[in-house]
Amino acid sequence: MKLITFRHADGSRVGALAGDRVIDLHDAAGGRDMNGLIDDWPRLAGEIGAAVREARTTLPLADTKLLAPLPQPRRNVWCVGKNYHDHAREFAGSGFDSSAAQGAVPTVPIVFSKPPGAVSGPGDAIDSSLDPMASVDYEAELAVVIGKAGRVSASDDPMSFVFGYTLVNDVTSRGLQKQHSQWLLGKGIDGFCPMGPTLVTADEVHDVGSLTIACEVNGERRQHASLADLIFDIPTLIRTIGRSISLVPGDIIATGTPAGVGLGFDPPRYLRAGDSVCVMLEPVGVLENPVI
Amino acid sequence: MKLITFRHADGSRVGALAGDRVIDLHDAAGGRDMNGLIDDWPRLAGEIGAAVREARTTLPLADTKLLAPLPQPRRNVWCVGKNYHDHAREFAGSGFDSSAAQGAVPTVPIVFSKPPGAVSGPGDAIDSSLDPMASVDYEAELAVVIGKAGRVSASDDPMSFVFGYTLVNDVTSRGLQKQHSQWLLGKGIDGFCPMGPTLVTADEVHDVGSLTIACEVNGERRQHASLADLIFDIPTLIRTIGRSISLVPGDIIATGTPAGVGLGFDPPRYLRAGDSVCVMLEPVGVLENPVI
Repeated sequence: MKLITFRHADGSRVGALAGDRVIDLHDAAGGRDMNGLIDDWPRLAGEIGAAVREARTTLPLADTKLLAPLPQPRRNVWCVGKNYHDHAREFAGSGFDSSAAQGAVPTVPIVFSKPPGAVSGPGDAIDSSLDPMASVDYEAELAVVIGKAGRVSASDDPMSFVFGYTLVNDVTSRGLQKQHSQWLLGKGIDGFCPMGPTLVTADEVHDVGSLTIACEVNGERRQHASLADLIFDIPTLIRTIGRSISLVPGDIIATGTPAGVGLGFDPPRYLRAGDSVCVMLEPVGVLENPVI
Repeated sequence: MKLITFRHADGSRVGALAGDRVIDLHDAAGGRDMNGLIDDWPRLAGEIGAAVREARTTLPLADTKLLAPLPQPRRNVWCVGKNYHDHAREFAGSGFDSSAAQGAVPTVPIVFSKPPGAVSGPGDAIDSSLDPMASVDYEAELAVVIGKAGRVSASDDPMSFVFGYTLVNDVTSRGLQKQHSQWLLGKGIDGFCPMGPTLVTADEVHDVGSLTIACEVNGERRQHASLADLIFDIPTLIRTIGRSISLVPGDIIATGTPAGVGLGFDPPRYLRAGDSVCVMLEPVGVLENPVI
């Protein structure tokens, strides 16, 4: 199922996407937002499934404003740095790496966060004027959405914590990222976490390693990689974060970006007002955002 | 006013502390939790003040279980690293600094976060078994609580964003902090953010620089410093975070710790099961937590 959150007269509603039609799941979800829907999924999945199958009235996607599937995360978005070999090399060579694992492929996952206020939806603008150092860069990332609460014990199957998958553009001020050493300020700027367009439930993704992620800027392909190339795979990321930190339903883990970001070019090719950046992965879809 | 959150049969309630008596503010606050009270403070302050002045029934503090003043922050707690000269030197000399500003006093604030699930209250246990590297350390910190939403423009007075002050013990796994380079995992462990005991409104603190913070482990003084010694003062921290990131009422900014943490000793003196750690600052009070 491709779950969505869309704008509605009364704020926002959850729904599902079927081709180019939007199914309103407000009633089937009992008015819950996406966080609440994930909380109660084991109880609601049957009814939601029936509502999708039997949908009598649908809305055209073209007339619908999609929001991020999780427009208001309950806490910061978990993000992973340097999680593809080719990007780890590219970043190390850029002079912008201010982490301990400089110049090397990390031996453990590098985990940081972006505040919930950074989250924006498909089509929302990335405001380049908010980066005082004019160094706005894109990072296409598959994001895992957590469905189950608690710590991940050694005997747990980490994949049992996965509710589904979405896309994140981990937009970054490279200047602030470098200057502040810890990455939160360079990564946390308002609107610097576009997310969506859909949240695909885990049952629809049988092998994450078979997926391909890509990023285009103004139609030019910049990033293109197989999810099989992750240095630390999804079970490892969930186990690493969840070992001593209780996961929360609706937690989002952005899994890192492959090579091809703007700072990998010489000179760097940062985003500028007027650009359009697309992050793509099937079956989640295309997440396009203009830069202003 | 010294605001508190305390356990009650129906979950938790907001209140105020007057000496050793607790005033229940549940009704005056219209049932709001501390986040909601901060949201609506401009409208509720008068009524809350009257409820405190006229309090007819109070509870003895000794019979009350205090929770963190903000037991469920809306997003990760903002934290500042290396913000006292003597601690910056101590940390640099420890070999545990995996940030860009290694060995140096930072030129800009180093900002990272702790997830809301790390927050615990006065008296709650710090579970040392959650650090797989047996390197649990204490960090006494004054924390600023934000009362106003939005970005901080150049013409704003950053102090107008301050709702009040509390204490945080920025408990850290030094091993994970070093290993993962970005500090989130080493800082974000469940229960590794004791907070409280009170949230003192800004009107009761006329000069932050006149305050003194201290930390004791098993009654032995380990940290003791004037808030006048902050490298980056509170207006600078608020302006730095809020320049491109919208602040949210209830945001917490832990301002960094002075010298005297466990890793500053040779060999390091980490916390162990059976220890008791106290963070102290008047007028907030004493935040004591046992280590198990």
